[in-house]
Amino acid sequence: MAALSAANTGMVASYGGDESTARLQAVAGKLFETEVAVFPVATGTAANSLALSQIAAPFGAIYCYEAAHIVTDECGAPEFFSGGAKLIGFPAADGKIRPEQLEHAIAFAQDMGVHHVKPAAISLTQATEWGTVYTLSELAALSAVAKKHRLPVHMDGARFANALVHLNCSPADATWKRGVDVLSLGATKNGALCAEAVVFFDPARADDFARRRKRAGHLWSKMRFLSAQLLAYLENGLWLDNARHANAMALRMAQGLKSVAGARVLHPVDANELFVELPEATVAALEKLGFQFYRWPLYAARAGVAIRLVTSYATQSADVDEFIAAAQRPR
Amino acid sequence: MAALSAANTGMVASYGGDESTARLQAVAGKLFETEVAVFPVATGTAANSLALSQIAAPFGAIYCYEAAHIVTDECGAPEFFSGGAKLIGFPAADGKIRPEQLEHAIAFAQDMGVHHVKPAAISLTQATEWGTVYTLSELAALSAVAKKHRLPVHMDGARFANALVHLNCSPADATWKRGVDVLSLGATKNGALCAEAVVFFDPARADDFARRRKRAGHLWSKMRFLSAQLLAYLENGLWLDNARHANAMALRMAQGLKSVAGARVLHPVDANELFVELPEATVAALEKLGFQFYRWPLYAARAGVAIRLVTSYATQSADVDEFIAAAQRPR
Amino acid sequence: MAALSAANTGMVASYGGDESTARLQAVAGKLFETEVAVFPVATGTAANSLALSQIAAPFGAIYCYEAAHIVTDECGAPEFFSGGAKLIGFPAADGKIRPEQLEHAIAFAQDMGVHHVKPAAISLTQATEWGTVYTLSELAALSAVAKKHRLPVHMDGARFANALVHLNCSPADATWKRGVDVLSLGATKNGALCAEAVVFFDPARADDFARRRKRAGHLWSKMRFLSAQLLAYLENGLWLDNARHANAMALRMAQGLKSVAGARVLHPVDANELFVELPEATVAALEKLGFQFYRWPLYAARAGVAIRLVTSYATQSADVDEFIAAAQRPR
Amino acid sequence: MAALSAANTGMVASYGGDESTARLQAVAGKLFETEVAVFPVATGTAANSLALSQIAAPFGAIYCYEAAHIVTDECGAPEFFSGGAKLIGFPAADGKIRPEQLEHAIAFAQDMGVHHVKPAAISLTQATEWGTVYTLSELAALSAVAKKHRLPVHMDGARFANALVHLNCSPADATWKRGVDVLSLGATKNGALCAEAVVFFDPARADDFARRRKRAGHLWSKMRFLSAQLLAYLENGLWLDNARHANAMALRMAQGLKSVAGARVLHPVDANELFVELPEATVAALEKLGFQFYRWPLYAARAGVAIRLVTSYATQSADVDEFIAAAQRPR
Repeated sequence: MAALSAANTGMVASYGGDESTARLQAVAGKLFETEVAVFPVATGTAANSLALSQIAAPFGAIYCYEAAHIVTDECGAPEFFSGGAKLIGFPAADGKIRPEQLEHAIAFAQDMGVHHVKPAAISLTQATEWGTVYTLSELAALSAVAKKHRLPVHMDGARFANALVHLNCSPADATWKRGVDVLSLGATKNGALCAEAVVFFDPARADDFARRRKRAGHLWSKMRFLSAQLLAYLENGLWLDNARHANAMALRMAQGLKSVAGARVLHPVDANELFVELPEATVAALEKLGFQFYRWPLYAARAGVAIRLVTSYATQSADVDEFIAAAQRPR
Repeated sequence: MAALSAANTGMVASYGGDESTARLQAVAGKLFETEVAVFPVATGTAANSLALSQIAAPFGAIYCYEAAHIVTDECGAPEFFSGGAKLIGFPAADGKIRPEQLEHAIAFAQDMGVHHVKPAAISLTQATEWGTVYTLSELAALSAVAKKHRLPVHMDGARFANALVHLNCSPADATWKRGVDVLSLGATKNGALCAEAVVFFDPARADDFARRRKRAGHLWSKMRFLSAQLLAYLENGLWLDNARHANAMALRMAQGLKSVAGARVLHPVDANELFVELPEATVAALEKLGFQFYRWPLYAARAGVAIRLVTSYATQSADVDEFIAAAQRPR
Repeated sequence: MAALSAANTGMVASYGGDESTARLQAVAGKLFETEVAVFPVATGTAANSLALSQIAAPFGAIYCYEAAHIVTDECGAPEFFSGGAKLIGFPAADGKIRPEQLEHAIAFAQDMGVHHVKPAAISLTQATEWGTVYTLSELAALSAVAKKHRLPVHMDGARFANALVHLNCSPADATWKRGVDVLSLGATKNGALCAEAVVFFDPARADDFARRRKRAGHLWSKMRFLSAQLLAYLENGLWLDNARHANAMALRMAQGLKSVAGARVLHPVDANELFVELPEATVAALEKLGFQFYRWPLYAARAGVAIRLVTSYATQSADVDEFIAAAQRPR
Repeated sequence: MAALSAANTGMVASYGGDESTARLQAVAGKLFETEVAVFPVATGTAANSLALSQIAAPFGAIYCYEAAHIVTDECGAPEFFSGGAKLIGFPAADGKIRPEQLEHAIAFAQDMGVHHVKPAAISLTQATEWGTVYTLSELAALSAVAKKHRLPVHMDGARFANALVHLNCSPADATWKRGVDVLSLGATKNGALCAEAVVFFDPARADDFARRRKRAGHLWSKMRFLSAQLLAYLENGLWLDNARHANAMALRMAQGLKSVAGARVLHPVDANELFVELPEATVAALEKLGFQFYRWPLYAARAGVAIRLVTSYATQSADVDEFIAAAQRPR
């Protein structure tokens, strides 16, 4: 908010010709240790869909997890932006697709020839939809298949900062050094008002991307208000601090839930999301107390129901403890 | 061919203003025992995609079998024509989707609200991709779910005639009396040179469909050459005769394969397709002899490989017998 | 900015489920004296294109001024959002299309039948691209043609506030009482950081619009930051105060330019834009002094060049006077 | 028709893997004196729209005559196939656009940057919509502008044969030697039942075009029936014979109309179309006699009305003379 106020002074060039936007390019390049092309937009759906439309033809196949955000939560935006590309989703209990799934699908497409959509791109979510994080070697293995078939790799990094602090490596190591070609770098879930960035690790791949952004209505005339958010987010480590805190809160939650009767944490808690199976009575009681969370429709719980818990930069230890105490209360 | 030659005389109105096209409407209406709106096109992909684009919004979900022709064999045409609608496919060993799959998917979409594509339509393939045929009660059960949620039902009838002679009922009983709203009526696979028809059982649903056909490049200036094919196909029972013959040849093949070592027919042979698991050596030998068929990539055979065999109006008993004899030969 | 800071407190529901967004509906309804459906978005291109895609089929014609912003300045966004609708532009020296142009184009389309795009919508820019304002009776005359042919009317109101204070009537009088069905209500050019609103005067017309916004990536998770801007803009007359000031500055500029040798103001200065023909030497001198404006490519000046001057809420009298003095300086 | 019957024998490979389709490539290559990639389709709208979608990005501008067939007669097909590219039409009394119009529009687009669609392609109609034919030097001058700006040139050759016999040069001279990159080669208007071909003069430009054709529903399973028509059309000069006859009939008509009171032929009659201004009474009388032609809506006649007359391979001298005699009859 302070950064926004600071940006609200003087007369500056519009549509990204301003100084903040120029500085953002430099800051991101330094952070990722390579020349990048950075395009700020206001939402994650815009970031993902614009990025995918840049790398996939309208008759292309985009391979991803079957319940990826781009598949289930964006109301067909990737199809819209790309002009009809098909998302081909693979099953994955922990949200991580496997190299052999990719190989199999590509081989099938090649067998089918013009009758099938053409292999066009891979999209990975990092951290995944189940709160897990692809390891560096998992990323490398998937990228190896992609490179073998000359397919670009997109990373949906709505929670990229959370994944990065978990991996405890440099941004470069977690992206282009593992074969990622374009990143949707999220900031909104981790502190910004409304800011995401599409980051191309090879600026040559970003040709005409500015026109795609414009014709989707995502070019801000007062671009400085987007760039200022991203600068504040990236420049002094705020993004990592926020993510570390959120991840720690998630772990505290997972730890605390061990003592709750009937609770079962469904996946490794690598980032800031937990999926927990709980008895129906416990879930109902928590809802009654005013705690807000989703009953997760994508998971058929073995017993009771599965809920999703998300922690953030704003989550306090006391909030977590209060939730656990409430869940422990006998009923 | 005779019908085409007959159509090649005199000066007639273009773009469907001719007498043959008018007669086709009447003939189809009588055949289906209700007023219909019929639109001839040259390919099955055009018929399916135009029909789906008419009933599904660009942000809509079309529910179908996960390996339906519209999903795997049309290079993204339904997404293209509809402006990005999403095909949501359900698994089904025999190619027939189940009412509870539909209910579950619709409930999920409703839970997700604007974040998910909106339930828009059902698409059923009759006969199915595995050569089976939905029974009349199976159709009724699926349509009941569709009607409950006010979703239109599309039938991909590339092999509709084959299904119809198997069901041994009237065209009306197999379609609109079982809740089908729009039919892609195939003729090309069953004898025509290049003719399919989109049939709307409620002409009011066809509003502006003529424009959709035009802007997709599927309005023929010399429409009479399409209409003439469909008239020849439908008017004197040729479609049913051809289909009966093709189905009989498929059954003869299935019967004969019982005596082949290691052969396993995978599904009920309701129409003119068989999927057969055979030892690799047998398949290789048949290929070497010049028989043409697909090794079926969508099926992981338990032993050996699965192949697809298709019979047609032009298949002779002797051809079938020759194939079986070749398959029986010890190797 | 103050409104944004105020919105940055507490935990509120996301995706528009917050209190500010609800209050915006009420405030807008009261302002327009009718129930409205209001959808905040961040850019004018998004507002226009989403609105047009809601009212025009992919095979539809949208009638407008040939150099409307939607035609020349949105990089094909209306075509993209609508799935291919065609903008049919009419010439108009002052940016105002005429009822007879509309009638003629619709008659032509009807003659052409399915071969031509279908008349779908009218889009008017208010204030126009040449800084003029449609009078209430001009609006009524255009809407009468639209209604006669059952075509909805869209108003691109990027400068709606400027037009409104010029017309000196109520918002209702300037819109739905003159046949406008959907308004792109601009705020960014008139003081907001990034806020526009799509306003439907018949909420029933907004069916599924929320899904269109979502799939275009224009649904903000933290919607309150958009709604807060619009509330601050509309609630206490700030929008009108800003517009009145900007218009007054434009008039001051027009008045002052009378004394400049070779200057010719090209159109009535109804809002906050002026188009002025000036000698090349004068224009070059002004540019050299650091004044920023566009040489206007759409106008073939009779003598010298035409430039566009835009005033805003932030323009000071002294700025205007300084510009005029500079232009007057002999060279 | 004979060619179709001949194609209706034996078992041949589907989807273009047949011998006729292979031979068509060779025949077209020989005819055009260069290696070409030829794609048969059934309609001119499909040929044009597929060709344009191959060369123009969704955010691209396609420059053409303002009343070109692709603008007014294809119901938005080019926009549909390209995913939203904008047709930018130039006025031209005789249907021929001018190099300076092209230069001006490209310069404007460059000035506008990302706000405007990107110059993508030129589309020329040969023969034009007014029955005139671009000369070889006119083609060369337009192509020179295109090449200067690296824009590909498309030729809508629905009446290409008619233009070619008028130009009296080789097919190569009339196309790629004058800078044409892709040709929609029409056959339907000049004798075929339903056959057009998209011809790429650089096969490398046709990359993935087969998928575009498939996903638009324009890949015939029984492709031989399209290829056979085109072979019969091209192989033995039938296309030129038919076109020569049609052109001669048009000239005979133009000649004869000189003696008709109040008749004024509007443009040079270079091909097989005439546009004639006639007194209303004469036109009404001709209509009453059963002659079929269009009153041309795109032309504001100075006196009376303008009608379009089209001659074809099937037009007889006696038909022409009968028309003239009828027009001459005093009333």
